[in-house]
Amino acid sequence: MNPREKLPQPAPELNRRVWLESPQPRVDDGRWPVKRAVGETMEVTVDALADGQDALAVVLRWRPASASGWREVPMQHVGNDRWRAAFTIGSQEPHHYTAAAWIERFTTWRDALVKKHAVGQDVGLELQEGAALLHEHAARAPQPDRLWLEQAAAALTENRPIEERVARAAGDDLAAMARKYPDRSGETTLDREFVVDVNRPRAACGAWYEFFPRSALTAAEEPVPGFRAAETRLPEIARMGFDVVYLPPIHPIGKTHRKGRNNTGKPESGDPGSPWAIGAAEGGHKAVHPELGSLEDFDHFLAATRQHGLELAIDLAYQCSPDHPYVAEHPQWFRHRPDGSIRYAENPPKKYEDIYPLDFENADWRELWRELLDVALFWCARGVRILRVDNPHTKPLRFWQWLIAEVKRRHPETIFLAEAFTRPKLMYALAKVGFDQSYTYFTWRNTERELKQYLRELTSPPVSEFFRPNFFTNTPDILPEYLQFGGRPAFQIRLVLAATLAASYGIYSGFELCENRALPEREEYLDAEKYERKRWDWDRPGNIRELITRVNTIRRDNPALYRNDRLMFHPVDNEQLIFYSKTTPDLDNIILVAVNLDPHHRHSGWVDLPLAELDIGPHDVYQMHDLIGEGRYLWQGAHNYVELDPQVMPAQIFRLRRRVRTERDFDYFM
Amino acid sequence: MNPREKLPQPAPELNRRVWLESPQPRVDDGRWPVKRAVGETMEVTVDALADGQDALAVVLRWRPASASGWREVPMQHVGNDRWRAAFTIGSQEPHHYTAAAWIERFTTWRDALVKKHAVGQDVGLELQEGAALLHEHAARAPQPDRLWLEQAAAALTENRPIEERVARAAGDDLAAMARKYPDRSGETTLDREFVVDVNRPRAACGAWYEFFPRSALTAAEEPVPGFRAAETRLPEIARMGFDVVYLPPIHPIGKTHRKGRNNTGKPESGDPGSPWAIGAAEGGHKAVHPELGSLEDFDHFLAATRQHGLELAIDLAYQCSPDHPYVAEHPQWFRHRPDGSIRYAENPPKKYEDIYPLDFENADWRELWRELLDVALFWCARGVRILRVDNPHTKPLRFWQWLIAEVKRRHPETIFLAEAFTRPKLMYALAKVGFDQSYTYFTWRNTERELKQYLRELTSPPVSEFFRPNFFTNTPDILPEYLQFGGRPAFQIRLVLAATLAASYGIYSGFELCENRALPEREEYLDAEKYERKRWDWDRPGNIRELITRVNTIRRDNPALYRNDRLMFHPVDNEQLIFYSKTTPDLDNIILVAVNLDPHHRHSGWVDLPLAELDIGPHDVYQMHDLIGEGRYLWQGAHNYVELDPQVMPAQIFRLRRRVRTERDFDYFM
Repeated sequence: MNPREKLPQPAPELNRRVWLESPQPRVDDGRWPVKRAVGETMEVTVDALADGQDALAVVLRWRPASASGWREVPMQHVGNDRWRAAFTIGSQEPHHYTAAAWIERFTTWRDALVKKHAVGQDVGLELQEGAALLHEHAARAPQPDRLWLEQAAAALTENRPIEERVARAAGDDLAAMARKYPDRSGETTLDREFVVDVNRPRAACGAWYEFFPRSALTAAEEPVPGFRAAETRLPEIARMGFDVVYLPPIHPIGKTHRKGRNNTGKPESGDPGSPWAIGAAEGGHKAVHPELGSLEDFDHFLAATRQHGLELAIDLAYQCSPDHPYVAEHPQWFRHRPDGSIRYAENPPKKYEDIYPLDFENADWRELWRELLDVALFWCARGVRILRVDNPHTKPLRFWQWLIAEVKRRHPETIFLAEAFTRPKLMYALAKVGFDQSYTYFTWRNTERELKQYLRELTSPPVSEFFRPNFFTNTPDILPEYLQFGGRPAFQIRLVLAATLAASYGIYSGFELCENRALPEREEYLDAEKYERKRWDWDRPGNIRELITRVNTIRRDNPALYRNDRLMFHPVDNEQLIFYSKTTPDLDNIILVAVNLDPHHRHSGWVDLPLAELDIGPHDVYQMHDLIGEGRYLWQGAHNYVELDPQVMPAQIFRLRRRVRTERDFDYFM
Repeated sequence: MNPREKLPQPAPELNRRVWLESPQPRVDDGRWPVKRAVGETMEVTVDALADGQDALAVVLRWRPASASGWREVPMQHVGNDRWRAAFTIGSQEPHHYTAAAWIERFTTWRDALVKKHAVGQDVGLELQEGAALLHEHAARAPQPDRLWLEQAAAALTENRPIEERVARAAGDDLAAMARKYPDRSGETTLDREFVVDVNRPRAACGAWYEFFPRSALTAAEEPVPGFRAAETRLPEIARMGFDVVYLPPIHPIGKTHRKGRNNTGKPESGDPGSPWAIGAAEGGHKAVHPELGSLEDFDHFLAATRQHGLELAIDLAYQCSPDHPYVAEHPQWFRHRPDGSIRYAENPPKKYEDIYPLDFENADWRELWRELLDVALFWCARGVRILRVDNPHTKPLRFWQWLIAEVKRRHPETIFLAEAFTRPKLMYALAKVGFDQSYTYFTWRNTERELKQYLRELTSPPVSEFFRPNFFTNTPDILPEYLQFGGRPAFQIRLVLAATLAASYGIYSGFELCENRALPEREEYLDAEKYERKRWDWDRPGNIRELITRVNTIRRDNPALYRNDRLMFHPVDNEQLIFYSKTTPDLDNIILVAVNLDPHHRHSGWVDLPLAELDIGPHDVYQMHDLIGEGRYLWQGAHNYVELDPQVMPAQIFRLRRRVRTERDFDYFM
């Protein structure tokens, strides 16, 4: 007996020589989708290799979820067996991608032919082999390509000078035709498909403005519904160039254990309470606080935001005041203590007796989850398409995964912003399960080193593939020390940083007034709006409304600022200065930002530009147009000088205008 | 109708709060196993997190393939939601690992209790809750632990001072008992299992010696079978401290197109030909060259290697001379040209007419693959357990994946070394599909920067998890320029580097004689042994046999040199010097190596040691014992001086001996 008979047969699929591995991008081995907005580009890379020296063909395969078949884009070899291609996201639906590769027999043959001919070897047999190969290609081609290939095959073995036949074989037209009909029977595909989670452009880029609608009421106006009063603020918010108006919770506020001013346990009569203590006799998460008006007033407000070119974001805060209807109707949704009371929120020594957390693990959890989904869908049904989620990190990750998927199944254009002030891994996990944007640690990153390190983390894979930062300068809960002590320049600095480092950023109202009065030794506002109605003077001296307007205009005019992934930091010889750029891939729009991080002192320094990456010659002169101050500067080469006085303006946002006029542009120059 | 009724029910498994992700190690998302040897440690880390502040318990689960159930090791939190544990590989079989986690309710409760009590809150209700929780634990426990837990529960609500009850609740004994019986009903597991490919220690560490057995014949001895003559070399190879003897192919050599001396096309009569041109009338890959003797002589040689404490590695070179029996018996296994001839190997302008490559894709490929498996099994059946594979990168990756798995299924202790002088991704892919070791680019890494960069790549994840380098200083094909021009010191330098940077290293005979005559402008030997029988004078003046013996002894005596993953480079202020360490995890064995990379000049410099990582105080005095020169040096602190004269000895291998004797060690000291 042949000794081989006892040996196993290799499985037929083992006879495939091409190897595909390490596709990028992928998040957690492909378990989670990468995120893109409509109109953005998906660049995909993959390692493709085979034994020996044979030429490969590698294609990126992609499709929108609604399409049945794959579209293919040839991938280009970029070195070290890595291949790259890209496609553009054209529709708001998930997209899928993978890759395939095969041995390119025609190219392999042609390369060897040319090499042998070049060193003077006889290639008569090679030309015969090529003719046979082209006949195989022809058999796979429809007319008229089939005839074309057959004629090309015949020409290789014609009785003509070898030089001429080699030239024919090596021609680009033949290669192009042959590559249309490769033998893909031994094709290898990646064993997985990857998913792109696609949302509309606002998910990736926008300027947010947060305010308390109840503070829009004046004493004189109190019979007016709060929403109607709040509408009067919209023209100015729109004029300042914001895209999104975000309101803290708009629901009835509990009375039991209501907090007084400055978060004191004892409210005075008339203290409105924290809007995050949701639920009262008037209703819960599907009701509107009576002082703000009716659901119809809400609808009117929503319509008004649209009329001003704004979008409305509301707050999804899944927690209850002791007066919330759920407490009586669904006591099983809360945790009970041995004395029968419901457990309130606490973080010893702090007690939040005005807040009952929901128990996501209670025996009736499925009904609770469905109810919370119903809350989100209730507001979506009224037309809300942006939900800012309060404290998502205190609710289970799989709850958000489920809820966001269910909402997006019905309203795919919904945008979820996670207020995830929590540990980094949890912040990122929330993004993976479906949040489109997240709050960040930007608020606590002030020095050059802190900013660079954090921005590099956020704008590089893997984080940049699934996590979209929204840089808030301040919130009703957070007045950072930098703003408390840095005066007006600190507000200007943080505004420019937030608005140019991140495609999405936001301010909480009062920021434009440089409001900086804090509780002692805390990063919290004195007389916080969370616990009282404020009466703001929007024209207060020292306000920075015009700078905000200017910066938001710059953001709209310059597509380089629409995204984060092309952020680069450039060296400065003074660490109180930070200097960075954002560019469009075609370099049509080059934005350079210089910021003095020290709100107290004038600083100057020499900066270095990576000229080659900006497609500028080493001795070229170019114009730096400061879009804030409107100054125009002529710079030459890489090394240039900046000087920023915080008392004048602590930042410059330059648009690099490549070409400088010379005498040749002068009309009479000959 | 309740509006929720229309909404979907969340799936039951969604109600699990713990989240596991990013397990390490894993190769290509877990597609390929990591490699370990018996006795080595598997350290596993994973991110584990949950919403909120609850305490977690995380366990590493592992098992040898032959065991049915998981073993569990508690993982420790090491910061930033990362958890770590390890297990030791105890048997030569694949091992599996994964992780599981759950909310530790007792710890969560205890931590909150202690926190509240510390700030003076009343914790009476908390103690009642704890008692209920302990009763739940008791219900899961067998006796006597059940009774113990019930009593502990009762004690928490006894009429005793609160201080005492809190102390009881916070006690370590209670925590240890409670953690034995957690509620694991909401446990989360990683959704995948990962595999460890386990081989014997020789797969990870060994000193190799390559020689041509035919060169052991002397003119007088030629009637003696070559294997018998070659046995006479074994005592000296063993004395020098090598572990593995590797022979180039031992099969009949083809006559057609046989290459002459120095790879010329025209052999003279008596030229023996390249042993890689396998196959002649006397047989193919399962036969032995008549000048070496019979299969019985081979068996005798194999037995002799064992008697000398050596292991034999043979060469698996899957290619044929034109005279190989396969050519007549299985012409379909080769590629044919239009004129009916078989395609020989070529790399224009080079032609290898003495070599016919096998066509792994031919229509009869399955029979070919089985035959090649049969070849490997033939030699395994005779007792060979190390196979050095020639040019694996010119055969399909999936062929190797299949063949190696089939061989190891029958002979799990087999070690495969890939002679993969090819592109980096392909070199690594061969390791992924199953090769235990690989040739590397070490041969071409000579400067401090080159060595550091390359070694960091090889000794860090992911590469270190699946790729085991074998640093050959030279091969029959490669005489690096560094050795050609650096004289004897160059050989000493490269020996010490290879033997201490890599746990596996090898030399090809002639290296110990500092043989450095090359073809002009080539990295090939003049009068290469590949094409002729050599008669070496092993006592040739200037040989470095004693240094080799010393270095191999040092390798055996010092476990720090058994592995690669704890290699660290340390700063030196002279870039012609390189300074690095290897240590055992317990720091019982600390080896420091200083090498002068310049074979021509004496160099000195100041080195810096990371004292804290070596558990040495900043001002401690310690002894540096040079195991090559036997000098002993007292060093103090981090900053110390080294000086190396290549004419004396270009390297020092220090064992750091921690303690220096002081007056207190003197017998009469009081």
